[in-house]
Amino acid sequence: MEFDYSPKVKELQAKLLAFFDKHIYPNEKRFYAEIQANREAGNVWVPVKLIEELKPLAREQGLWNLFLPRSPRAPQGLSNLEYAPLCEIMGRVPWSAEVFNCAAPDTGNMETLERYASEELKDKWLEPLLAGEIRSAFLMTEPAVASSDATNIECRIERDGNEYVINGTKWWSSGAGDPRCKVYIVMGKTDPEAGRHEQQSMIVVPADTPGITVKRFLPVFGYDDAPHGHMEIELKNVRVPVGNILLGEGRGFEIAQGRLGPGRIHHCMRSIGVAERALELLCQRALKRVAFGKPVAAQGVTRERIAEARCEIEMARLLTLKAAYMMDTVGNKIAKAEIAMIKVVAPNMALKVIDWAIQVHGAAGVSGDTPLANWWAHQRTLRLADGPDEVHRNAIAKLELAKHMNLNPNEIDMPVTRGF
Amino acid sequence: MEFDYSPKVKELQAKLLAFFDKHIYPNEKRFYAEIQANREAGNVWVPVKLIEELKPLAREQGLWNLFLPRSPRAPQGLSNLEYAPLCEIMGRVPWSAEVFNCAAPDTGNMETLERYASEELKDKWLEPLLAGEIRSAFLMTEPAVASSDATNIECRIERDGNEYVINGTKWWSSGAGDPRCKVYIVMGKTDPEAGRHEQQSMIVVPADTPGITVKRFLPVFGYDDAPHGHMEIELKNVRVPVGNILLGEGRGFEIAQGRLGPGRIHHCMRSIGVAERALELLCQRALKRVAFGKPVAAQGVTRERIAEARCEIEMARLLTLKAAYMMDTVGNKIAKAEIAMIKVVAPNMALKVIDWAIQVHGAAGVSGDTPLANWWAHQRTLRLADGPDEVHRNAIAKLELAKHMNLNPNEIDMPVTRGF
Amino acid sequence: MEFDYSPKVKELQAKLLAFFDKHIYPNEKRFYAEIQANREAGNVWVPVKLIEELKPLAREQGLWNLFLPRSPRAPQGLSNLEYAPLCEIMGRVPWSAEVFNCAAPDTGNMETLERYASEELKDKWLEPLLAGEIRSAFLMTEPAVASSDATNIECRIERDGNEYVINGTKWWSSGAGDPRCKVYIVMGKTDPEAGRHEQQSMIVVPADTPGITVKRFLPVFGYDDAPHGHMEIELKNVRVPVGNILLGEGRGFEIAQGRLGPGRIHHCMRSIGVAERALELLCQRALKRVAFGKPVAAQGVTRERIAEARCEIEMARLLTLKAAYMMDTVGNKIAKAEIAMIKVVAPNMALKVIDWAIQVHGAAGVSGDTPLANWWAHQRTLRLADGPDEVHRNAIAKLELAKHMNLNPNEIDMPVTRGF
Amino acid sequence: MEFDYSPKVKELQAKLLAFFDKHIYPNEKRFYAEIQANREAGNVWVPVKLIEELKPLAREQGLWNLFLPRSPRAPQGLSNLEYAPLCEIMGRVPWSAEVFNCAAPDTGNMETLERYASEELKDKWLEPLLAGEIRSAFLMTEPAVASSDATNIECRIERDGNEYVINGTKWWSSGAGDPRCKVYIVMGKTDPEAGRHEQQSMIVVPADTPGITVKRFLPVFGYDDAPHGHMEIELKNVRVPVGNILLGEGRGFEIAQGRLGPGRIHHCMRSIGVAERALELLCQRALKRVAFGKPVAAQGVTRERIAEARCEIEMARLLTLKAAYMMDTVGNKIAKAEIAMIKVVAPNMALKVIDWAIQVHGAAGVSGDTPLANWWAHQRTLRLADGPDEVHRNAIAKLELAKHMNLNPNEIDMPVTRGF
Repeated sequence: MEFDYSPKVKELQAKLLAFFDKHIYPNEKRFYAEIQANREAGNVWVPVKLIEELKPLAREQGLWNLFLPRSPRAPQGLSNLEYAPLCEIMGRVPWSAEVFNCAAPDTGNMETLERYASEELKDKWLEPLLAGEIRSAFLMTEPAVASSDATNIECRIERDGNEYVINGTKWWSSGAGDPRCKVYIVMGKTDPEAGRHEQQSMIVVPADTPGITVKRFLPVFGYDDAPHGHMEIELKNVRVPVGNILLGEGRGFEIAQGRLGPGRIHHCMRSIGVAERALELLCQRALKRVAFGKPVAAQGVTRERIAEARCEIEMARLLTLKAAYMMDTVGNKIAKAEIAMIKVVAPNMALKVIDWAIQVHGAAGVSGDTPLANWWAHQRTLRLADGPDEVHRNAIAKLELAKHMNLNPNEIDMPVTRGF
Repeated sequence: MEFDYSPKVKELQAKLLAFFDKHIYPNEKRFYAEIQANREAGNVWVPVKLIEELKPLAREQGLWNLFLPRSPRAPQGLSNLEYAPLCEIMGRVPWSAEVFNCAAPDTGNMETLERYASEELKDKWLEPLLAGEIRSAFLMTEPAVASSDATNIECRIERDGNEYVINGTKWWSSGAGDPRCKVYIVMGKTDPEAGRHEQQSMIVVPADTPGITVKRFLPVFGYDDAPHGHMEIELKNVRVPVGNILLGEGRGFEIAQGRLGPGRIHHCMRSIGVAERALELLCQRALKRVAFGKPVAAQGVTRERIAEARCEIEMARLLTLKAAYMMDTVGNKIAKAEIAMIKVVAPNMALKVIDWAIQVHGAAGVSGDTPLANWWAHQRTLRLADGPDEVHRNAIAKLELAKHMNLNPNEIDMPVTRGF
Repeated sequence: MEFDYSPKVKELQAKLLAFFDKHIYPNEKRFYAEIQANREAGNVWVPVKLIEELKPLAREQGLWNLFLPRSPRAPQGLSNLEYAPLCEIMGRVPWSAEVFNCAAPDTGNMETLERYASEELKDKWLEPLLAGEIRSAFLMTEPAVASSDATNIECRIERDGNEYVINGTKWWSSGAGDPRCKVYIVMGKTDPEAGRHEQQSMIVVPADTPGITVKRFLPVFGYDDAPHGHMEIELKNVRVPVGNILLGEGRGFEIAQGRLGPGRIHHCMRSIGVAERALELLCQRALKRVAFGKPVAAQGVTRERIAEARCEIEMARLLTLKAAYMMDTVGNKIAKAEIAMIKVVAPNMALKVIDWAIQVHGAAGVSGDTPLANWWAHQRTLRLADGPDEVHRNAIAKLELAKHMNLNPNEIDMPVTRGF
Repeated sequence: MEFDYSPKVKELQAKLLAFFDKHIYPNEKRFYAEIQANREAGNVWVPVKLIEELKPLAREQGLWNLFLPRSPRAPQGLSNLEYAPLCEIMGRVPWSAEVFNCAAPDTGNMETLERYASEELKDKWLEPLLAGEIRSAFLMTEPAVASSDATNIECRIERDGNEYVINGTKWWSSGAGDPRCKVYIVMGKTDPEAGRHEQQSMIVVPADTPGITVKRFLPVFGYDDAPHGHMEIELKNVRVPVGNILLGEGRGFEIAQGRLGPGRIHHCMRSIGVAERALELLCQRALKRVAFGKPVAAQGVTRERIAEARCEIEMARLLTLKAAYMMDTVGNKIAKAEIAMIKVVAPNMALKVIDWAIQVHGAAGVSGDTPLANWWAHQRTLRLADGPDEVHRNAIAKLELAKHMNLNPNEIDMPVTRGF
């Protein structure tokens, strides 16, 4: 047992932090200002120039695709334990992940393609994604059913000769607002009569396929999250070649299982990063703001919250790192309890810390003058995205109870859930 | 002791609920749609036609200025205890209060004018406000200082012959976005050398006085709250006649004390109303949404939250009604502990209930497809508006400790705080 | 709506508080000292002389059987709303209730006998109970089954000619440790084949009937609660006359429903009283104990807790009074949601307040040098006694959900539960 | 970074667990039964035979003094990181630590003697302590002052020729009830005029020195914790040789700083162990107890709590292990934030888990039929022992704020506090 980061990780952290000091922190206001200018100019759904400027710089320094596990197309890939502390740093400025080509949902989509797509599909879609030339979306959740139980999903994928015909309505397809979003991975039912976990498949769908309509964006607590965007998308008789199916019919849940672990841990690391940042802002404001004759930092209530925040951040980080370690050493399947735990713990912790930071900032905290309200809104979605807390707590409890029954925990699956 | 509403109140409740069934609930979507259309048309800062349509209907039915205490200009005025359950109903649809000319900050401004303004000022400003022809704003909070401690306020009001000259920057001047907002009540220092609570005064300032610049709106989470708007306003050598001062120089804190009680209790009643509504939405969704083979309403966690919500709503309502009763019977000054208690309790309770409702709605809950996220954002501001929780809890504790010291609780003032 | 106590209640409060000042508070230490002396002398299960001394004084002043509703044998009986604030005062010194013949479980047993027993049984058992000459116990909970679901109860009551033969093991028969405890009311199954809620009956059993063995006392967090005592009692072929059955075979649940409401509300009022007292002790200690250069009362954390405690006590009291009002005006059946709510709210609130008081007292708080630890232990049992929180929350939720279904809330019963 | 225990630790864990299976778990009831028999026989303050039987077995297997860091007299000593998981196992049965000569306060006293005592004192007191032949107590807390701020301590240690004369009253001298307790380490003021942190000294005092009176035991909730016992001790003109002073006059705080870290971490590890055990009992009971037609384990509320418990236990353990790692690698002084964090986190977590376990056990949970109530009472003291939560949270906050000021965290001391 050892609690220090490896020299390799420390070096990457230092490099990434230096990049932040030079290119990210100084541009935080510019990012929002550029989007606001686009909004006022009448079209907010355009790529952010700042990001495009910074991407080549990051790539040059090797701060690129850090999320990608070692694989034929990514020989320098990092382990989860190595990536985690880097991902945490990116969480400190939520829009920064894209600069390093480490933004969701591209990361999950790239991993999925890397593992389950044909070489042809990889050449066509994985390569430009790895190069940061295009973006992608993941179409799973549906407005009509409780997707917290993914077996509810109703989108149909029906074979018709050499094509699959797709019909359904998806929403919360995050990133599909970006004009560079060129490809979707769609989950739907190929066989509604099959076993509960064998009905679904995943299929690759080019965004410009006829029959696809992006109907509207979904705001999050008033934010449009442009140009990323969370879209509602209608698929009407959308036809793609049979080769676009991933892994084979009925294997959608299997893919989801593989995909969900890393996706969840990335979110958690970023939640920890944003919580650290919120605590910094809290402390700085509390030290300089005076009320009733003393700095807010001298008040007992503020102190209690700072201490609680520090405790909870530390613990959430350690649990997340342990989950990463287990994913690397014993595999995502065995690590499923730990993944479910951090999935619940990290955003709830971050929400608490950000809320305390808002309170110390007074009304500035709920406005756009600090990033706190925006961070809070995003973290709030993470108690639902990839499955609501309640579904994951239930899974953790089942695994715990299994220890006292004659059950094999390996037979209890990680919940496939989007919570939306 | 008696826990039933009076026949008079029951009749008003029935009338108001009937109005809601006929005119408010059916128009909930239209309200947001109209504003969205204005936004898309390039100017969101215009009055909402729907409101203007409904105002005459409400007035016709006597559902008008219900907030106003009995007074020479409002002989039919209601007591706080009578108004509270009506205000709660308005809280169920937050934009509805204006339909009944019961919206903040006009209510507080009207009460302030009614109590402390000269007859001349009343004729000029109170009458059109009572008639719902103009709107108003209250300029207290400042960006540069912690207004949670109102003695920090720095805006200067200096006498120069027959005029006062005002200089300062205010923000969170809610309602000042509305083009109908014609008058401000401004708080500032007339004598920075006077005693801590005698430095400040309040003064009436027409919105079109030279030297006034509305600089920007402040979003709340991602909402612009148009056309109401929370504005930052600069006052530069703004000149008004000396007669515009309310009550006299140095009496700003005294007015604030009188004004804050009713304002706080109105917010609380509306918080209770919105919490009731959120619980309704929660139950309705939980009954019809199925996950893992049963309705969400059948899950133990949902049940626990419904029960907790019901308990907390009931208790917050009773405490608010008791505070209203005390304001009516022993006065705002004696009721200050109760007012501080509900100020803390009500929005925290509402936030909890709305958050649970969001969770049951999944991603729809954080979007614009339900009003929940918007309600949550608004309630979150109420933990800061009129003073942060922490300031009020401190005041409650001081009053409690005073019981065990040889202190006269009458000498402990209600906190004058805006928390921003 | 009116929040003041009636003149009659105020007079009784004043009288009772005067009695406390004169006879109860000055004897608090003596009570525990007397029991400790008995313990050291080798038999702690003897009546407390102090109580016997004070009973005639209380009776003389008309502070006797205050709990009893108006009825033929108690023409001066009080309403629930009238009794509630008196019961709260008794809660300030938990052992004091017996001085006024208002102690559980005698109160519930007297009410049950008054309502459901034959005149003969009343003469024999109710009269000496009303006179405070004997005590009683209620034998419902069983060690072998989850009594939170009272349908689980297994004790058998079988008719054999003119007698019922009772077999079973009961525990948590509180008060059965007292040598003056002369009569039990026993719940058990007369017909295990009947409908779920028609299997059980209640029967009166003299404590000295052959076949009864008091096996042991059950400690509560290390306390023996002597001489009251929570006993485990074995009933082996215990025979009583058929006339001892209450109301008739199969009507045990019906009686339980009638009995449980008042019992629960009494507990709640006492919880509120003890919480008030804990808050007093907290404030007094915080004002005089100095750490890190200032009184504990000056520390922000202490202040926050005092304020929270005051808010929660006020709200729990109001909800309890409202429940009492409803029991008086619309009946226990309609008031069942309110009764369930206070059943959950009051002890949880009291536990929180007492815990904070313990923390301010440091190690003295967990010891016998303050009554806080003992109070805490007792309140902790109230989250289980008469049914665990979870069962009551479930009942509240069912009633809430029923509003949105086509269900008649009258058909949802109050949970018959002992939670043990 | 690595999250697996070392092979050496795994071997010791296996050995210790085997010892538990063979000798500890099967004797849990006997332990309490033996003490109860002593109590009933009239003297509970006698050593427990069971412990004495088991000690040689543990020693034989090398499971002895595991707590002791590597040192001249303990060449096989373990690091904190190695000991932590073993200490956790002992926490599963709180009385078991003594079997392995790893019980507080002997462990802290042995470490203190080992580091700071003369060879003569070591021969006389450390050797028999290491051999488990005698026990010891630590006399720091005083009833008259808030010992949460240890500068308040008033006991006087005055030099008189070749002796020190000690006068004072101490309480919560845990273990001093045991007749084998032969030596005390006493903290008191040698120079009340010195700097705030140079007034105090520590001195070794044989328990049979004239002038010492053990006045009474202090119960914890209703438990006497015999034969260990928490005693109040009067020291009246107690004379010991000058050589008994540890390290020198005025260095009491320095010693306290060194002693407190390990003591706190041991408590935390045991809290984690007892929480694990409580969760086991919770799960087992929930699986076999049926209410309302299904096992309690199938109810959503139970599931939520199990999941929360698992998350919080894991996180508290990781933070504690990290603190141990830091103590080993960078020293107690640098690790002070982590030590303060676990000091707060671990007992609060354990209390929550045990409380949930009690709730699932119903009334059995608060009685003596499960160890849960006793465990809870003990954990509750740990929110005060070695300093109340509030003092430690304040210390954590100060360290956090120091990061944003120009402060050297090394100059912020670990709080010397007993919280009593």
